[in-house]
Amino acid sequence: MVKAAVLGAGSWGTAYAKVLAEAGTDVTIWARRDEVATVISETHENTAYLPGITLPPNIDATTDHAAALNGAGIVVLAVPSQSLRGNLKQWTSAIDKDATLLSLAKGIESGTLLRMSQVIAQVTGADLSRIAVLSGPNLAREIATRQPAGTVIACPDSARAIDVQKACATGYFRPYTNSDVIGCEIGGACKNVIALACGMASGQGMGENTIASIITRGLAETTRLGVALGAKPATLAGLAGVGDLVATCSSPLSRNRSFGRVLGEGGTMAAAQEAAHGQVAEGVKSCTSVRALSESFDVEMPLTDAVHRVCHEGLSVREAVGHLLGRRIKPE
Amino acid sequence: MVKAAVLGAGSWGTAYAKVLAEAGTDVTIWARRDEVATVISETHENTAYLPGITLPPNIDATTDHAAALNGAGIVVLAVPSQSLRGNLKQWTSAIDKDATLLSLAKGIESGTLLRMSQVIAQVTGADLSRIAVLSGPNLAREIATRQPAGTVIACPDSARAIDVQKACATGYFRPYTNSDVIGCEIGGACKNVIALACGMASGQGMGENTIASIITRGLAETTRLGVALGAKPATLAGLAGVGDLVATCSSPLSRNRSFGRVLGEGGTMAAAQEAAHGQVAEGVKSCTSVRALSESFDVEMPLTDAVHRVCHEGLSVREAVGHLLGRRIKPE
Repeated sequence: MVKAAVLGAGSWGTAYAKVLAEAGTDVTIWARRDEVATVISETHENTAYLPGITLPPNIDATTDHAAALNGAGIVVLAVPSQSLRGNLKQWTSAIDKDATLLSLAKGIESGTLLRMSQVIAQVTGADLSRIAVLSGPNLAREIATRQPAGTVIACPDSARAIDVQKACATGYFRPYTNSDVIGCEIGGACKNVIALACGMASGQGMGENTIASIITRGLAETTRLGVALGAKPATLAGLAGVGDLVATCSSPLSRNRSFGRVLGEGGTMAAAQEAAHGQVAEGVKSCTSVRALSESFDVEMPLTDAVHRVCHEGLSVREAVGHLLGRRIKPE
Repeated sequence: MVKAAVLGAGSWGTAYAKVLAEAGTDVTIWARRDEVATVISETHENTAYLPGITLPPNIDATTDHAAALNGAGIVVLAVPSQSLRGNLKQWTSAIDKDATLLSLAKGIESGTLLRMSQVIAQVTGADLSRIAVLSGPNLAREIATRQPAGTVIACPDSARAIDVQKACATGYFRPYTNSDVIGCEIGGACKNVIALACGMASGQGMGENTIASIITRGLAETTRLGVALGAKPATLAGLAGVGDLVATCSSPLSRNRSFGRVLGEGGTMAAAQEAAHGQVAEGVKSCTSVRALSESFDVEMPLTDAVHRVCHEGLSVREAVGHLLGRRIKPE
């Protein structure tokens, strides 16, 4: 049996570790903080990031990355996208030379504008055939409570994709394999920006039609960017595109949607951050890197551009919405 | 200026008449019942189907179809899909020979398995170039309260599509033209079936991930059917596909979702109908005709099939969900 290391003890890393464990795969979680690792090992609960969920006995936790990585055939990278490079530099020498590197991180690296699989290849030197991405409509708490959901595991090497699929398939968690890493990563990077836009519209008092229109136009610009980078449109019409986008934009619990909502109600960035317990929503950072990526490939992304201008250039939400809706009528 | 007749005084017909009127187009609504026509003409409100909304002064109403159709360059067909044929037989002789026929009806005719534009062509003898379809994320009450939304106007004759677009474009209602009538019609016919499935899952206590997975898999089977009939995949990834689907499946007010929810909670068809004030949800009828259409084109539609079996063959929702999720793991 393959053994997995899950590097990162946030809510999604922990929930995915639970899925692996329930599918029969032994898992060691690496946590940055000692108290998190200790609580998981001793009480079988991640009280800090996934409280109230009992973890299976075949999950262990440690702050020693080399111990977590020892013998791991599947290395799950579950740290925030902007921390991945720094973490990987410390981990690379301890990663087995034949292990599959599975990215759960969603975003485009600031500055370099690299996708997460590109960062992984660059830092570890791993061949792209060893790098896989997991993405889909997977709100962590719902997966942790065994709500049924599908997901996509993308890898250029289909045998590795199938290995990962087998390691995490359960009655409630349905992984589908795909070879389109780029499509999965672009879908994951863009969805938080669109969720921010949905929150802004909702904060302005707009209803389901507007939200559905924003989701649709957001999907269109995400697909344009993906295709320019080499993704397949079908991936973005699937679980890692539409599926993840709809789950993220629909959930009232979504951090990005809530953050946008405060802005839409007329709150400042500071007020939105305060309402989010001091955290800045992921989309606030991604909108800038996604926009820069789209400009370098000459792809029009009016929604992303509007979100960037609201978050970083002082445009009011009212002006942004007017700007988007005021575009000239034309063919779809 | 073009004049429009809106045939059908339900909530969507009335809301769309308001859009046309606010875009500067004079409108006469035809209502089946005398009291509905009288109330609209005298009080500028459709108290029966769109209560609380004041209609503009350039909307009139009548029960005389010939009076409504007199001089109308745009004839809006806003009756239920299964009533369209019967109504059209009575109206055809009064329709101007050059008028554009714009269908708001969503469904597949039972028995014949024809799309609405095909029914219109068959009964009126109109050339397909005169027949247009309007579809998008357009919940009637939100449009009536001027919530911003996009929509698609599809017609093989782009000049007619643009005429209709101009007749109904307002600051809050953004019509996009498209030539893909089939894609718009298939999107509209399938979405209610998928909304029923979302309601069933929600009634079983499932969350956003599951709903998003159902929406995605539903979109995939809708696209398969559309493509088999000649639709463009891009239409189903647009406002008349994803957009309409997301709005219908997300709204807690959606009749189809509410109906499915009662079934998901363990209620009988009779209980669901009672909760819906005696009405059967549109998806309950469409699932059977969509399924028959998919069989005749040899297209797999597991979600539609499951909804049909729950509604008409006594399958329990629990078995249906188990059946859907229990499908073997495979490539996306």
